[in-house]
Formats: sequence, C-alpha cells, structure tokens
Amino acid sequence: MNHKDTIIALATASGVGAIAVIRISGPEAISLVAANFQSIKSNKSLLDQKSHTLHLGHIIDGVRTIDQVLVSVFKNPNSYTGEDTIEISCHGSSYIQQEIIQLFLKQGCRMADAGEFTLRAFLNGKLDLSQAEAVADLISSDSEASHQVAMQQMRGGFSNEIQLLREQLLNFASLIELELDFAEEDVEFADRSEFKTLIERIQLVLKRLIDSFAVGNVIKNGIPVAIVGEPNVGKSTLLNALLNEERAIVSDIAGTTRDAIEDEMIIDGVTYRFIDTAGIRETTDVVENIGIQKTFEKITQAQVVIYLFDVQQYEVQSTKYKVELESIKNKYPQKELIVIANKADKVDTKVIEDLQSDIPELIAISAKSKKGIESLTDALTKLVNIGALNNNDSIVTNSRHYDALLKALNEINKVDEGTQLGISSDLLAIDIREALYYFGLITGEVTNDELLGNIFANFCIGK
Amino acid sequence: MNHKDTIIALATASGVGAIAVIRISGPEAISLVAANFQSIKSNKSLLDQKSHTLHLGHIIDGVRTIDQVLVSVFKNPNSYTGEDTIEISCHGSSYIQQEIIQLFLKQGCRMADAGEFTLRAFLNGKLDLSQAEAVADLISSDSEASHQVAMQQMRGGFSNEIQLLREQLLNFASLIELELDFAEEDVEFADRSEFKTLIERIQLVLKRLIDSFAVGNVIKNGIPVAIVGEPNVGKSTLLNALLNEERAIVSDIAGTTRDAIEDEMIIDGVTYRFIDTAGIRETTDVVENIGIQKTFEKITQAQVVIYLFDVQQYEVQSTKYKVELESIKNKYPQKELIVIANKADKVDTKVIEDLQSDIPELIAISAKSKKGIESLTDALTKLVNIGALNNNDSIVTNSRHYDALLKALNEINKVDEGTQLGISSDLLAIDIREALYYFGLITGEVTNDELLGNIFANFCIGK
Repeated sequence: MNHKDTIIALATASGVGAIAVIRISGPEAISLVAANFQSIKSNKSLLDQKSHTLHLGHIIDGVRTIDQVLVSVFKNPNSYTGEDTIEISCHGSSYIQQEIIQLFLKQGCRMADAGEFTLRAFLNGKLDLSQAEAVADLISSDSEASHQVAMQQMRGGFSNEIQLLREQLLNFASLIELELDFAEEDVEFADRSEFKTLIERIQLVLKRLIDSFAVGNVIKNGIPVAIVGEPNVGKSTLLNALLNEERAIVSDIAGTTRDAIEDEMIIDGVTYRFIDTAGIRETTDVVENIGIQKTFEKITQAQVVIYLFDVQQYEVQSTKYKVELESIKNKYPQKELIVIANKADKVDTKVIEDLQSDIPELIAISAKSKKGIESLTDALTKLVNIGALNNNDSIVTNSRHYDALLKALNEINKVDEGTQLGISSDLLAIDIREALYYFGLITGEVTNDELLGNIFANFCIGK
Repeated sequence: MNHKDTIIALATASGVGAIAVIRISGPEAISLVAANFQSIKSNKSLLDQKSHTLHLGHIIDGVRTIDQVLVSVFKNPNSYTGEDTIEISCHGSSYIQQEIIQLFLKQGCRMADAGEFTLRAFLNGKLDLSQAEAVADLISSDSEASHQVAMQQMRGGFSNEIQLLREQLLNFASLIELELDFAEEDVEFADRSEFKTLIERIQLVLKRLIDSFAVGNVIKNGIPVAIVGEPNVGKSTLLNALLNEERAIVSDIAGTTRDAIEDEMIIDGVTYRFIDTAGIRETTDVVENIGIQKTFEKITQAQVVIYLFDVQQYEVQSTKYKVELESIKNKYPQKELIVIANKADKVDTKVIEDLQSDIPELIAISAKSKKGIESLTDALTKLVNIGALNNNDSIVTNSRHYDALLKALNEINKVDEGTQLGISSDLLAIDIREALYYFGLITGEVTNDELLGNIFANFCIGK
C-alpha cells in the first residue's frame, strides 16, 4: 500500500439519500478539489481557507456543473486521517455520487481500499490499533452494550492500561539488558522486588481482561438461547411476548431471513439469539431419534437453555418432563437452565406453587396474556454478568486481542517462574521481550502488512 | 404544518456506512445541540461559534457518550433552509443514528416530514417552487440527461424566464386595472402595441417550453422502444450487444427484477426501456392471434419500434416481412421505426445492398459479433432531439409545470383574442389575472397547502 497518494471514497451508506458525503484524503486532497470547485460566496481558493470550515459551491468538470455541494476543509494534522482531507456533501443520487468520484479518479485520486482512511489515521498516530479496530466495531454495533464497549475501546479503553504496563515492562527490560553488559560485575540495575510487584500487577490486569472476554464475546456476538419444547407448548407465542416487551428490540440484520430476524432480540441492551428446537422425547422411533439428535446439537451451540412446557399437561406428563430436565442437566452441567411453565393462567395457583417447590428455578408465565414475561427477561439479564460493563471496567470483545492477551500472560508467567527460579538475566530478557511483543500486537507498536491487511479488510470502504 | 419548531432527520441514505449525517433545522437547532455536545478542542459553546465551521466532539446524553462526531454549524439565513441548522456527522451504525435522533426528539425536536427541509427553504425564499422540485429530480436522476436538466432547473432554469415575463405582465395588468378607475375618461395607461409585443413574446416562450416537454419527458422517464421480432432472430443477443457498448449503462433500479434491469439502458445519457414482443405473424390461429394482439399493445406504449429480422431468412420470408413492416407503418404512422437485419455477416454484402435499396431505413448488424451496433445507437440517438439540451435551452420535465404552462398559454391566447376583438379592459384584466395565476403556480408565488403537500410528499425524509 502506498500512503503518499490521495484516496477517495463514498463515506455514507450506498443508495439514494437526501445527501451523500464523499471523502478525499492525502497530500493533493485540497488542491484537487480546489481546481474543480467554484465557490458561491467567496473569491478565495479552497487552498487559502482555514481548517474546519464549510464552503457552498459547485463541483465542476470543465464547463459542466456536476452538483451544488458543501465542501468541508480539514488541514493536516487536524483531520480524521491526520492528512489534508476534504469532505464533499453532495445531493444523494447514485449518479451524482459516481460522477464526482469518477471526476476525482480522473484527476489523480485513487479509490480507497476498505478501511484505508482509518489505516492512515493509525499510521499517522491519530489512533492506536485497538482504537482503530473499535471504529469498525462501533459502526457494526447494533445494541446498547456492543455500542458502549466499542465507544470505550475507541476512547482508549484497555489499550491505555496495556500501553502503560508495556512502558514499565520495557523500562525493566532495558535495565535487565543493561545488566548483561556488566555481567561480570554482577550488578543489579533492575530492582527485583519492584519488578516482582510489576509482574504481579501485569498478571492481575491480564487475567481480568482475559476473563472479561466471556462477557465481551456475549456483547459482541449475542447469547445463543436454545428453546426446548414440543410443538404447541407456546414457543412462538413466547417469542412474540418477548418482542412485545418494551425493552426488547428485534435487530434488523440485512441478508437474514425474516424467520431468523424474529429470533434475534435485544433485551436490555444485550442481544439474544433464540434457537428453536423440536424438543426431546425418549423414543425408539428412528425418525424421531434424528429429531432429538438435532435438538441436542442445538443445545450444544447454546449458552442458555430454556425448557418450556405446558403446565396443563404437567399432571399427565410429569415423569417425562422430569426425565428430560434431568437429561439436560446431566448432559450439559455448564449450561444455564431456565425452566418455564407456560399457560400458568389456565391452572390453579396451587399447582404452580407445588411445581415451584419441586423445581426452584421454575418461572410461571402466560405467554398469550403476556404475564410473567418480565420474570423471564429478569432471569435472562441476571445470567449475563454485564456488571463489568456498568462499572466502566474494560471489556475485551475482539478475539485477536483475547489471543494476544493469553499469549502475553503465558510469557509473563514464564518471566514470573524464571524470576523465582533465579534464571539468568539474558534468558529473563528474552521472555520479557516475548511478552512485550504480544502487548505491542494489541496496541499496534508491533505490526506487519499481513496483520494490518487482515484487520482493515473487515472495514467498509469509506472508513 | 408548523414551521416555527425545530426538525430533525437522517439526511444520508439509510443503512450502515462509514459515516451518517443527521440534519437539525429551526430556531432551537444550535442551542439543543450545544447542550448535548462536548467539544474536544474548544471551550466555546457551539452558540458562540461562527457559521460554516466544523467542530469535533462528543454527543452526550447526561453522563453517557453516544458518539464522537463532527458538528457543522450554519447560522440563519446562510443555510439550506434559511434557518439555524446543525449537521451532525456521526459513525454510520444504525444504532448510533437512532440514538442521536431519539436524544434530540426527547429534547424537543420534531421528526421532519418528507421534504420539509426543502419546504422550509422555499418558504424562507431560498428557492422558488420549481427549484425546490428540481432538488427531488436531482436526487432521483440516474442519467446524464436527467441530471443535467434537473441541475439547470435547480439553478433557475426556465423559472427565471417565467418570473420575468410574469412581472412584465403584472405591470400591464396593474396599468389596465388603473384604466378601470378612470373608465369614464377613456384613457389608456397601458400601451397597447407594447402589450401586443409582450403577449407575442409570452406565447413564443410558452410554446417553446410546452414543446420541450416531449424531450423533457423522455429525459425524465426514458424512451420506450418495442423490439418486434420472432424468437431466434437475436433479440437478447442484440440487447447484450447494446449493453456491451461502452456507452450503454444498465440502470440499477432497486426493486425491479433482473430481467427488467437488463431491458433498461442508458445510451449517451438517455434512458431507453426495451420492451420485448413476440412478433407479428398474420394467422388464423386464435392463440397466436392473442400473441399478436399483445405485440400491438406493446407497440402502442412505445415511442420507437425496432423491427428485427434474421437476414438469412429474408429470401424465404421476404413477403411476410414486407407485409408486417407495412402493417406497422400503416397502424403507427407516428412511431419512429428502425428496421434491423441481423446476422448480416452470414450473407453476401450483395444481399444487404439489395435490401437497403428496398428499405432505405435498414440497418445491417451482426449482434453476435457486435458489428453495426454503433449504427443502431446512432439511429436511436438521432431520434431523440436532445439538441435543446445541448443548446442549454430550458426543458420542462415536470408534468405539473407542463399542465400549468398549457393553462397559462390558453389564458394568454384568450387575452390575445380579446385584445384583437377589442373587449373591455375589465374582461381583459380578468384573463390576465388568470394567466398570472398559472405562472405563479410554477414558481410558487401562488400556492396552497394542498399543492405544497402534494409536491413535498414526493421527497425523501431528510431533504
């Protein structure tokens, strides 16, 4: 990638809107636009305008007027990319968008690669690598929780913490490496007890961040919830009742079928993916056994299992229900289980009370009349420890970061062991350098073209 | 509609993009945003910032940060609407767009109606009505010609001309009405020969504009072209060959099927809609007759008819072909006819020469090897008189304007006749006022809520 040229891309969503914004960044950005812009109010060239100012005028191609536009001028380093940048706010027809982009491609701009504006921001030191990644997360965030975590990461988040620890560790590494130069004199520049404290602090921080990934992953990818229940126990009525709760929002994902959309909901800022299953019935029938097999497969993918039954049937089916519940508990001891007795308004309160003394985790609802739904959403919300989120603690959502943190902790543990075993300074220094490498991967002090290529390929063009 | 409140809407295309722009206009626009904006670089409130400046900061809702944004400040009257206006350029996730809009709705903004920003621009005298309508045309333009006409109209176009004639006519109307006050004295304030010259000039202008609608309508809605030809004469090969010409662009219309897309092409800036027909064969077969009926229906809808045949078949089928061509010519003397001999590379040049002396309008092509296609596109381009477009003459594309122009001409003709018949000044004045009314409808001096409602309902929200 050449970062000396001037790049262009549509920055707003594609399609027709009232307006569209085209972004141009690079050394020639202002001069190229100035040469194709006729201001309405000012006689000054765009080149002579101040940074962060807006100018009404026409984009012209020779004698032809392409559009009346508003041009924003940003002068380096005070722009998103850190370079000279122009944003052209034009009328939102696809034709005009294309004509303006074509004009500037003809004049020497290059079409920006996916994420190239943000890549340049990173290369120009406007953002560290984890902040740059947060930009993509922010744009794809569709729930309050995922948005909040992305915002936090974009504003520094845990990378500030990592950065600070990295600097302190780097300092120690230098001192230890200095000792190597005086090896024969047996001096210790690096205070070993201070070093021990630092290592312990680093271990604590890394462990906390690694642990946070469980929540972070939930926030980013949603919680898979398998609903186990036979036909007619009220699965779709339950999903509809959840939908009708004010707090639930169905997320609108392009490209998924309507069915899939109906099954993904955001409740109190957290995304749940409801997976419908056919239920489990112990049987000798081959065909039915395949169905049960599928149910178990779906439970395996889920993090939470909702076991739903019709309380009116309980008297007749209680043995069967108990066997099924036991089999889920035995097979999946790690999964969170919620047991729901539906159609609770159709039976005596006594029946429910008896059931609840039998099965303490039971929630009685009436999906049809929307009673008890809040107990269910409360139970779901309680399962997700997003307390960390509310405490403003840093949360790791990115599996690349998670991976680097695990490897960094591994190296730090080696350093810790090595110190305790009194290994030589040169071996210690090597382990510290390894740990520093993984720290650097997160914030971007250590990068290579492949890593950057992988990260920014996930961005949209124009960002 | 209340135009004293502050309105908000997403101005860019909906969906996820790198950035999105939210527009807020009205008396409270700046103060509402200022109260929910934390600048990164400046200590000054947005209220104290100059017009046409950009500010980096965070949109906040109490303690919660919604997004890092760029805010553009426009102070009345120097904005699109003529009111105080803020544009918020935020990260382009649907979640963030919605959160920011919700925040300001909560703070007292109202969701903008379709086209309400442009309506306010009209009401505040920033645009006349035909210019406002051109904004919607500009946004929906998808070819060079439709874009050019919309641009011209937005920059004043014929409404400036109408405006000038209207003022001169208004002046005469006043003088003639003044004569009425002095009726008994038999004075003439309005010079009748000057008046006659003006009426003639107005008639000329109106006729030219009315005539231009034929071209304008073509530019706006495309030219329907019926292709008459039996199966296997190469209809789809022809369409593909046209597509492969560099000058042809298939317009990308959301919601249409792929087949329909393939049949709509922009050639040299003009949109053609190709309508496939089953051909015409004189027959006594009832079923086949229904097919022929349909072919004729499609020809009726078309403006141009392409009669396509396989030149290899000509020797055997010449009588049939001649009969069919005659029947099209007789039935549709008004339609432009293009006769195409396909597969011309399969026969001797002598055969083609003989045919061309028989049928002078014949174009020989080979759709498969893409020979002769340019002769066809030239023939199509010649049929459309877009000379007017290139001469920078005003072109009427809007059927509302066309209607008003027709009615205005009708009234002016009455005035003309009346003057020649020497009718009384009071009757003359009434006819002039009628003409003035229709002139005013175009530019918007005469409006009513229903008219405005109809016009702006066609806009997208955010414009």
